[in-house]
Amino acid sequence: MNTATISFSASGSSLIGYAEATHRGNSFQARDAFSKELLPGIFYQASPEELFLVASQALQAFDGMSRASASLRILFLRRLTNKLEAMKGGILERARQETALSEVRLESEFSRTINQIGSFIRLLEEGSWVNASLDVSYKADGTLLRNIRKMYVPVGPVLVFAAGNFPLAFSVAGGDTIAAIAAGCSVIVKVHNGHPGTSALVGKAMAEAGRETGMPDGFFSLVYDTGFEAGLTLAEDPYIKAVAFTGSLEGGIALMRTVSMRPDPIPVFAEMGSLNPVLLLPEALKRRGAEVAAAFASSIAQGCGQFCTRPGLFLALKGKDLEAFAEKLHTHFSGLLPQAMLSPTTTLNFQAKIHKHLRDNRDIKIRETTHNSDGMQTPSFATTDSETFRAQPSLQHEFFGPFALIICCTDVEDLLATAKTLSGQLTATVVGEGAELTAFSRHIDVLKSKSGRIIFNGIPTGVEVCPSMHHGGPFPAASSSFYSAVGVDSIQRFVRPLCFQSFPEQLLPEELKDENKLNILRRVNGVPGRQAIVKD
Amino acid sequence: MNTATISFSASGSSLIGYAEATHRGNSFQARDAFSKELLPGIFYQASPEELFLVASQALQAFDGMSRASASLRILFLRRLTNKLEAMKGGILERARQETALSEVRLESEFSRTINQIGSFIRLLEEGSWVNASLDVSYKADGTLLRNIRKMYVPVGPVLVFAAGNFPLAFSVAGGDTIAAIAAGCSVIVKVHNGHPGTSALVGKAMAEAGRETGMPDGFFSLVYDTGFEAGLTLAEDPYIKAVAFTGSLEGGIALMRTVSMRPDPIPVFAEMGSLNPVLLLPEALKRRGAEVAAAFASSIAQGCGQFCTRPGLFLALKGKDLEAFAEKLHTHFSGLLPQAMLSPTTTLNFQAKIHKHLRDNRDIKIRETTHNSDGMQTPSFATTDSETFRAQPSLQHEFFGPFALIICCTDVEDLLATAKTLSGQLTATVVGEGAELTAFSRHIDVLKSKSGRIIFNGIPTGVEVCPSMHHGGPFPAASSSFYSAVGVDSIQRFVRPLCFQSFPEQLLPEELKDENKLNILRRVNGVPGRQAIVKD
Repeated sequence: MNTATISFSASGSSLIGYAEATHRGNSFQARDAFSKELLPGIFYQASPEELFLVASQALQAFDGMSRASASLRILFLRRLTNKLEAMKGGILERARQETALSEVRLESEFSRTINQIGSFIRLLEEGSWVNASLDVSYKADGTLLRNIRKMYVPVGPVLVFAAGNFPLAFSVAGGDTIAAIAAGCSVIVKVHNGHPGTSALVGKAMAEAGRETGMPDGFFSLVYDTGFEAGLTLAEDPYIKAVAFTGSLEGGIALMRTVSMRPDPIPVFAEMGSLNPVLLLPEALKRRGAEVAAAFASSIAQGCGQFCTRPGLFLALKGKDLEAFAEKLHTHFSGLLPQAMLSPTTTLNFQAKIHKHLRDNRDIKIRETTHNSDGMQTPSFATTDSETFRAQPSLQHEFFGPFALIICCTDVEDLLATAKTLSGQLTATVVGEGAELTAFSRHIDVLKSKSGRIIFNGIPTGVEVCPSMHHGGPFPAASSSFYSAVGVDSIQRFVRPLCFQSFPEQLLPEELKDENKLNILRRVNGVPGRQAIVKD
Repeated sequence: MNTATISFSASGSSLIGYAEATHRGNSFQARDAFSKELLPGIFYQASPEELFLVASQALQAFDGMSRASASLRILFLRRLTNKLEAMKGGILERARQETALSEVRLESEFSRTINQIGSFIRLLEEGSWVNASLDVSYKADGTLLRNIRKMYVPVGPVLVFAAGNFPLAFSVAGGDTIAAIAAGCSVIVKVHNGHPGTSALVGKAMAEAGRETGMPDGFFSLVYDTGFEAGLTLAEDPYIKAVAFTGSLEGGIALMRTVSMRPDPIPVFAEMGSLNPVLLLPEALKRRGAEVAAAFASSIAQGCGQFCTRPGLFLALKGKDLEAFAEKLHTHFSGLLPQAMLSPTTTLNFQAKIHKHLRDNRDIKIRETTHNSDGMQTPSFATTDSETFRAQPSLQHEFFGPFALIICCTDVEDLLATAKTLSGQLTATVVGEGAELTAFSRHIDVLKSKSGRIIFNGIPTGVEVCPSMHHGGPFPAASSSFYSAVGVDSIQRFVRPLCFQSFPEQLLPEELKDENKLNILRRVNGVPGRQAIVKD
């Protein structure tokens, strides 16, 4: 193991395993998201030679991890938790400067990050996640008649692109990284340029926890990139076996395109946000439109609308109940103070997108509140008819920020036809009264077919991290509808089955031995259970 | 439902759901694989308009299937079994003519096809395969505090490209089709041109069983194609949500490339064969080389070498034990009668490949037996050194036919280095004595990292269909190492998770209701069990 001293501040170099990169070429600095001032710390882009080293070490470390048992990863994840807790103050302070996210929000994101790590620790401790299956039968003389066993094994080194809007929970020690390491993969994190200092601090926690617990050098590397060069170079590297990404549709598609040029295909697990449509059924709108408007106003405005599950589209029948709903939404938005977005660029992009796609269209009516001065932003919404919505494909894409579009449909058939034009979504929400659900069952079926999660009388923001959560959905919400980016099942993105046929007991992984010393749930001859295999 | 009479013979038109296509454009006939004579039956390529209808009906049928319960699919699969059994004689007779596969082999493939259907019937009857997960907790007052539930739902219409070398088990009613239908997907099968008459007969069984059990029109369609046009048109159709393919590396890559051009990415589950390397350890070679040679001679020759798991590469230390092994292999091959391959084209391709890649290389020594007259084929092998093997990338690819390459390595390090150059494999086999396994553990680890199934002292052919079997592997053996093409877990290629949050009990699928009337294994708050959820 490399015993070089680790001495980062919230600045610096890429990490090539436990060593700091030394190349001094392109560099950048972070800006205070409130004051726009430069923050301390110069971040250097890794050189091509350093990227080659990063990938080579990731492969070597992967081999080392494959020979170690899950207890090493458990040890590491526990130590990481301690390190993060100890560094919490500094991490949150820098994250607040870099992202302008509120203290409350960052506190909660920090807890979520720790809880995610905890859920993977428990998953590894329990052990059944490897999905062991054994088809074993003995002949009367005690020799084996059939001896076929399989389980999940890690897929190889994984490249993670950190998210801009979750500086902790989907960044350096976030869901993707932790799921991949829990699976037994080495991980290279490409830092998001919105929060490089936060990333340096969390990277330090990762490296220190790894070194202290004996994780092989290269199990984790951290890469800075002034643009897209370093990230895309790694995505093309033959040693990388899977890529995880959280970000924009444009970014995700560019990455998928680069990876599709490789001679060997590897999966890109991209979560690219969505409109998260809300179907407002007439009876609910009539009975409790004001209450519903209040709930969704908060959901849209929360975190300045920078959640991938922010409700961005309402589908409803036109009429005075919908008008009253819109007025209530406007009233709520008017009472809110402007907020800083993640960065000045985020604000500019958001405003430019509204300008480009909405302001010049006479069939779309924008309802804004105060003027958004000095890069601060208040929530807004717009209303239009279903014909305009269906005719303008750009409205099918997420506006990243505190905004929603209300589509006024002429009748139930128009509502159905509009729902059918939607592309893939992370979530879809139905707001309705029990009595009207049967009449709208076709509409609900359409939303089910378009989304990864369907919510009844709730809001889509505030993704609960639990085993039954699914965070993903049909394209373009995600690159593949098969996988989740949240919850312990997200580990399935980083494993492949490996089958052992007629293998000698001593060469089998503990999970597949007759004895089942780990007491995990396995399928034995097709039947789930925790029993050992005994010769009849 | 379409009530048009179904009256196929082993000839005819594509099936657009329950209706026969009527377009009469390009057509082809099958040839007797022995006599090369044309067989009765003219098969017409579906027109673009017919292909559009096929895809539209598949989508409509998918909606219908989504509203029906699994019991409909069980009913259908049972009826299909009866139909196939009743038509067995005619199917096997035509298959023998079209493929030259032996009666014994076809009998066994027929049984395997029936057994595969049976395994999916049992999977659906048991029900736990939907991987239900519920995070539900109640407050003291009986209201729900948390209510998140998820399960697998079918992904949408699936396109299946039938295999040439398995006219039954990986064709019209083969593993891919049955797994997709069991999942709840509608299926379009693109017939393999090597056995169109067999496909027509099995297609008739599928359609009749579907019609009689009330499966929605379009749950199954059958498409003929004189070349690649119809298949690729369907692979680009926006209604198709997944593609399954069994065939050559070239065909699989061409298909993957076409699909990668779609605006929306969909998975291609391609199984493209492999070399299936065999590591012969020195002690085993010394002690029982003759016995090992006999076993592998049969495995290579079986079915005229036309199995995707045929051992095609031996890695061993050079010396007299390896020479003796090669001599034994030659002796066994010399005692075998020439066999007809699947088609004259298969034979030509096989011989041309040997000619192109081996015969002109003075560092490769080919050992052939009798001359292969009149398109009949006997098994052969070649020997070369590791340097030659590593220098010629074309040797990394499967030679589809009864052939294997023996690589003579200079020492254990050369053996390791050679193993490391291998690309992804369906299987890898280790032949060794218990005492020498530790010394070669690095070699075994390399083979594990390269393959989907590792076998100890056995042969890779004769894939056993059981839950623990894995038939897949790292690219280029398969398009993705994550999925199996054999066994009940192959259903995972055709499902995606769908999460229901705060959904009213009456709108939940039976699998996710509190009561668990189906008595399936579910994760409830992370813990597996079959219990109902009861309010505390």
